[in-house]
Amino acid sequence: MHSSKTREFYEKYIACLNSRKLENLGLYVNEVLTYNKKSISLKDYQALLEQNIKDIPDLYFQVDLLVADDDTIASRLNFNCTPEGEFMGILVNGRKVTFSEHVFYKLVNNKISEVWSLIDKEAIRDQIK
Amino acid sequence: MHSSKTREFYEKYIACLNSRKLENLGLYVNEVLTYNKKSISLKDYQALLEQNIKDIPDLYFQVDLLVADDDTIASRLNFNCTPEGEFMGILVNGRKVTFSEHVFYKLVNNKISEVWSLIDKEAIRDQIK
Repeated sequence: MHSSKTREFYEKYIACLNSRKLENLGLYVNEVLTYNKKSISLKDYQALLEQNIKDIPDLYFQVDLLVADDDTIASRLNFNCTPEGEFMGILVNGRKVTFSEHVFYKLVNNKISEVWSLIDKEAIRDQIK
Repeated sequence: MHSSKTREFYEKYIACLNSRKLENLGLYVNEVLTYNKKSISLKDYQALLEQNIKDIPDLYFQVDLLVADDDTIASRLNFNCTPEGEFMGILVNGRKVTFSEHVFYKLVNNKISEVWSLIDKEAIRDQIK
């Protein structure tokens, strides 16, 4: 895809997550993908996202920075949300937290095939001290 | 700059860091920049990098993923190095650690003007347990 198409693809993927239409995830993600170097299935990925939404009912993916070329996407996502209990091993317990994720995606056949994600857990920990 | 030029610019910047020619940093970085939302001077940035090299004599920036457009760069950097004492508040004490950094840069006047960096501290902590 041309880089402008890749951006458009990513914006649709994020809109899919934000509208909770996870049944459409297969439009954007391959049947098998690598997530932080671990091989998972589309179903696993969907289950992971469903769990995130269950843990954080007001989860909203806000794209702060987006860079794309033909087959690679880098995104800085901002979150301003209220995890109900534990999130990533941190007991947030219904407090509002703000944090970022820096995430890279590699596309194969115009769908997400690899994800490398780093979440600023330190920021979360600092806010609930 | 065209995105291919931006990539070239970034590769030269990383080569500058890896060759320890920090006196040339001003070729790549503006006089004032924002680092993780904090305003710092080029001199501060240089001092920060000098401190990193002092703390980690075998520090080497390996570009794993690179995406760029006209004025934004996203890079996944891999490190495989030996911090002598404390690094980012973690007592590494001469053990070899492997970790990644996901970093975004915004260019103004063809030089780095903003940096958003996330380092996988969790990975470092896990390796020195």
